[in-house]
Amino acid sequence: MLQTIGQRAKQAEPVLRTLHTMEKDHALRQVAADLLKKQEEILAANETDVKAGKEAGMSEGLLDRLALTPERIGAMSEGLCQLADLDDPIGEITAMKKRPNGLLIGQKRVPLGVVGIIYEARPNVTADAFGLCFKTGNAVILKGGSDAIHSNRAIVNCIRNSLSKCQITPDAIQFIDDTSREVATSFMKLDQYVDVLIPRGGAGLIQSVVKNSTIPVIETGTGNCHIYVDESADLEMAAAIIVNAKTQRVGVCNACESLLVHEKVKNDLLPVLADLLKERNVLIHGDAQVTDLIPEAVRATEEDWGKEYLAHEISIKTVESLDEAIDHINRYNTKHSEAIITNRYDHAQRFLDEVDAAAVYVNASTRFTDGFEFGYGAEIGISTQKLHVRGPMGLLALTTSKYIIYGNGQIRS
Amino acid sequence: MLQTIGQRAKQAEPVLRTLHTMEKDHALRQVAADLLKKQEEILAANETDVKAGKEAGMSEGLLDRLALTPERIGAMSEGLCQLADLDDPIGEITAMKKRPNGLLIGQKRVPLGVVGIIYEARPNVTADAFGLCFKTGNAVILKGGSDAIHSNRAIVNCIRNSLSKCQITPDAIQFIDDTSREVATSFMKLDQYVDVLIPRGGAGLIQSVVKNSTIPVIETGTGNCHIYVDESADLEMAAAIIVNAKTQRVGVCNACESLLVHEKVKNDLLPVLADLLKERNVLIHGDAQVTDLIPEAVRATEEDWGKEYLAHEISIKTVESLDEAIDHINRYNTKHSEAIITNRYDHAQRFLDEVDAAAVYVNASTRFTDGFEFGYGAEIGISTQKLHVRGPMGLLALTTSKYIIYGNGQIRS
Repeated sequence: MLQTIGQRAKQAEPVLRTLHTMEKDHALRQVAADLLKKQEEILAANETDVKAGKEAGMSEGLLDRLALTPERIGAMSEGLCQLADLDDPIGEITAMKKRPNGLLIGQKRVPLGVVGIIYEARPNVTADAFGLCFKTGNAVILKGGSDAIHSNRAIVNCIRNSLSKCQITPDAIQFIDDTSREVATSFMKLDQYVDVLIPRGGAGLIQSVVKNSTIPVIETGTGNCHIYVDESADLEMAAAIIVNAKTQRVGVCNACESLLVHEKVKNDLLPVLADLLKERNVLIHGDAQVTDLIPEAVRATEEDWGKEYLAHEISIKTVESLDEAIDHINRYNTKHSEAIITNRYDHAQRFLDEVDAAAVYVNASTRFTDGFEFGYGAEIGISTQKLHVRGPMGLLALTTSKYIIYGNGQIRS
Repeated sequence: MLQTIGQRAKQAEPVLRTLHTMEKDHALRQVAADLLKKQEEILAANETDVKAGKEAGMSEGLLDRLALTPERIGAMSEGLCQLADLDDPIGEITAMKKRPNGLLIGQKRVPLGVVGIIYEARPNVTADAFGLCFKTGNAVILKGGSDAIHSNRAIVNCIRNSLSKCQITPDAIQFIDDTSREVATSFMKLDQYVDVLIPRGGAGLIQSVVKNSTIPVIETGTGNCHIYVDESADLEMAAAIIVNAKTQRVGVCNACESLLVHEKVKNDLLPVLADLLKERNVLIHGDAQVTDLIPEAVRATEEDWGKEYLAHEISIKTVESLDEAIDHINRYNTKHSEAIITNRYDHAQRFLDEVDAAAVYVNASTRFTDGFEFGYGAEIGISTQKLHVRGPMGLLALTTSKYIIYGNGQIRS
């Protein structure tokens, strides 16, 4: 089965690579319209998944991610229309120069080819990932979780029908209907047909893909993000940023999980901050100096420094210097997003230079690490690896380049 | 042992990341000078490897790659001086823009971190790979073949001594002294410490790395490169380009391995071309139409179409159309370098658009796919994968980016 899916994707690839922007945008709008039209079918399929999830004792949080509503289908549809409105990156000549021998050497942006996506329960990823891959001329093969199988099947069928209506090969999107672990592992070895594999989900899924895949992987997202409050910080600004980064949305990878406070400002900052966090039900894990100042804080263990809570919890450590803060962050972070709150120019610049992460901030919330906030108009995830793309991935992350060379008989001597 | 090497590389990483260009260039020139000074030691060590190679019955070609001479050490030294003269890509801000909320978001070019390189017999790769990684602020861990162990050890020791003289951590370059296959496989799993792994060598080595590595890999080089002679081609130009691409150097990945000829020009081209290739001892594997025209040609098998000969051999096939040529190339090529010889505008443009390869040429030899020929002043290999970098890899291929964000208290709403 996987072989056939791979072959079909490879057959679709040259067709998709040369589609005009107008054709792609028209098809995206057709899919967007059809998702609204087929809303009843999709909601009915989703109901089956939600019912099974409830029976299996799925958590409230997961059930919420799984459940579709007319509003959520509306948002999926709207997302595709927004993609249609974005500039098409494919075909852009990003550089072109004449060499001394007269060869004209250019670089052109082209699709990656076939993109594989392995994801967990959220059915909105299905339409979303299709839209991003299709806009960039890629064929996509999706492998969703078993919890959302009926929803995903309904959405994929709807999209394939829309594409056929537009005289575009429906194999632009294919769906692996077998949700077993064995099939997932075989999918990760399909390097003959798949150019890149993107896992979207929890740390377990991502690690499994990194370990097992023979296809190049773009590793996305775990975030143990830190904020360091320097001795020179505006403490009111610091408190506002920390509260925002920790509590504006706790289950996301760019939320703040750990706070470092210069010991010279701990007395002024921590009691005020503790009250703000307490109001928002945030549990503090602190070192000895922190628990001395905040009675309701619990003592942090070594494990806390490396923990991505994704919950109303934060670790707080006092440090003696910027050096100690930078060392601590480079040791425990997941290379995602890190911030310093400071009014010192030299400390700001050293933090930006020396902290190793996809995004480093001065005096702003880590929550901004996001494709939309960065102005990309779309996002396929946040890369925490260094190869290919780092940080929020917009449409460009789904492209590669090709050298095009115009000669008039040049040979090498 | 590997753990210790990995830890040392990680310790060296923040130091190397923030070295100034002047310090790096000074150290490169020091290494270049010391390689010449330690020439006797290096040649003596190489003599041990060459002697062992001869006793083990190593082929002439491999012995030639293994052997060092004063001239070759001079070239290694000269290469490092050239790197010192190149612009430093690290620290460049490639984009910076103000978002509507006042955040100033920039992208800065930074080192990858720790680069692993697995290579075969050529000891010159040792100095070369060090120079490229060092110039770009990366720590490098080298794993060379057992055939060159004494040469590599001598070169690495020389480089480490030079770095110490310059007060730079010698762990900028580390060498895995154990050449066993088990250690090689463990090295490929060192993702905790190594950010990217680059194999340099034959197809077997590259495939082994792709299959076994949990570190992101940059796949380099096999090249089954085609030239298609269109019916509208200038046949004199075609013959000159084919002879150049096939015979100027046969053992390289950008050499032409397969020729496609439009049937309307086969009578005019092939007999002339056969004579030119015969003079250069090139064996032709052709289809029936080719063997009819060239008596000394042998019949090609299916296997020939996919073969990278790396020798004085070429496969030749006649085709009825540009479409057939493009289909054939996209089926059998290794996504390296492909050329069309044509005088038709529409055929040139379609070939550039529709052939899927790192480099596509109109009216020029495939032999130009090379970092120096493309004007990069250096080359670490030629990537045939689509992720991160495609085609000749210069210094930029050893860098990644980091978002730097300047705020004044922004929080996300």
